[in-house]
Amino acid sequence: MKIELASSYGFCFGVKRAIEIASLHNNSFTMGPLIHNQKEIDRLKAHHNVGLYEDIKSVQSGDTVIIRTHGIPKDELQTLKNKDAKVINATCPFVTTPQNIVKRMSNENYSIVIFGDSSHPEVKGVKSYGEDVYVVLDPSEVKDIKFKYDKIATVAQTTRKKEEYLQIVKELMLYNKEVRVFNTICDATFENQAAAKDLSEKADVMLVIGGKNSSNTKQLFSICKTNCDDSYLIEDEQEIDLDWFKNKKLCGITAGASTPDWVIQKCINKLQNLQ
Amino acid sequence: MKIELASSYGFCFGVKRAIEIASLHNNSFTMGPLIHNQKEIDRLKAHHNVGLYEDIKSVQSGDTVIIRTHGIPKDELQTLKNKDAKVINATCPFVTTPQNIVKRMSNENYSIVIFGDSSHPEVKGVKSYGEDVYVVLDPSEVKDIKFKYDKIATVAQTTRKKEEYLQIVKELMLYNKEVRVFNTICDATFENQAAAKDLSEKADVMLVIGGKNSSNTKQLFSICKTNCDDSYLIEDEQEIDLDWFKNKKLCGITAGASTPDWVIQKCINKLQNLQ
Repeated sequence: MKIELASSYGFCFGVKRAIEIASLHNNSFTMGPLIHNQKEIDRLKAHHNVGLYEDIKSVQSGDTVIIRTHGIPKDELQTLKNKDAKVINATCPFVTTPQNIVKRMSNENYSIVIFGDSSHPEVKGVKSYGEDVYVVLDPSEVKDIKFKYDKIATVAQTTRKKEEYLQIVKELMLYNKEVRVFNTICDATFENQAAAKDLSEKADVMLVIGGKNSSNTKQLFSICKTNCDDSYLIEDEQEIDLDWFKNKKLCGITAGASTPDWVIQKCINKLQNLQ
Repeated sequence: MKIELASSYGFCFGVKRAIEIASLHNNSFTMGPLIHNQKEIDRLKAHHNVGLYEDIKSVQSGDTVIIRTHGIPKDELQTLKNKDAKVINATCPFVTTPQNIVKRMSNENYSIVIFGDSSHPEVKGVKSYGEDVYVVLDPSEVKDIKFKYDKIATVAQTTRKKEEYLQIVKELMLYNKEVRVFNTICDATFENQAAAKDLSEKADVMLVIGGKNSSNTKQLFSICKTNCDDSYLIEDEQEIDLDWFKNKKLCGITAGASTPDWVIQKCINKLQNLQ
């Protein structure tokens, strides 16, 4: 049986980078969990003594604190500095971009619309960089906003869909003479999905590796299942049932955005032992 | 029978203004026809001796030349000045806006996309104010454009539909990180249509006054006919057939964007004599 990895799978660029940064800072703390994967958090703790702060109040003077990919609100960054923490910024560059845009546009007297989820840490962080900023998730929310300025700039949470962002832009265009649209959406999530689709169309068995509660893993699984009946969602190599691969010619593998490479590698090793 | 005018009909603000300006300048010339209505052009000639130049080469030194609502390209404006013509600018303010935006955005090193018809005088004029400017009518044209700059600004021909403009914006968003959208669409055309719809829904006979070759008049007629079987498209009061109004209770009236008020008034007078 041939084994083929999807052309894009697992961690995005920003998460890979944040984990590398954390691995270079033994005895540091991350501000919130670095990734939605307990195994990886355990590994960072075991190998690098990277701890976890859930609350900024816990930070002690002299601590090395790693900002995760989502970034943090401006005032919290200031709090860390006031506490004499050594701040290591692992904010994804694709998140730094909307933060900077919001800051610049606000300085130029634009009202700002962020398309995203107001309770998401990334959005909270981006919002903190502007003055007259509104977070919207549904196009219907736009028309009731009382903007302070007559020029509007808009950014999107990096993980949103472009088609949905466009609906927000449409509403903004209807009610405002100038709308400055910054496409801050990152394609990583969609690249994993497109690659999963391509691979599942030709594979006769598919493994989707990731958290069973992870929405992006479940979405990958649903895409694979559509194209390949024999698709299986597993969290690690222990869940692999060797019966799945009888008389199969091509096993495709993909993984959710929070699945570490070493978890994927263990699955591949187990399959290779089959042969 | 009651007679009711649509809440919006006939000339838009810009055309009304241009005709007033022309009426204040006896013995002047318009650069191109001021309006798609021969009767009104004849009236301006008869009452104010307002002539018509079809070609800029015909302009003589000392002529008073009226720029019509569409505006003209920058180089033609310069030609008029070089010829020592006295230029009276009746460019619609809603057209001056995109001209100024294109000029300003071009100075700030944006590539420009105009949504519109490249052969339309308004679009030719607006285009002339920028450096790296592309005119597109169909969204599919966007992806092949090789922009000089990485920031895009976009304006629309004033008479376009917002829904269609949005499709252009969508394509621009897909391929460019920053798109600065200026909504330069004027609602006048759509206000006449909305008012025609409202009135034709309650009237039992509708008169649509305008040129039989005018696309906007034909569109008004089509809207009225959908709601009111007894809808009639006429160019002037002579075409009115009094039989149309037998046993009718409410006669609605609307008029195309190039129909002068005095033509409409003559129709109303004829109907009032019925009663």
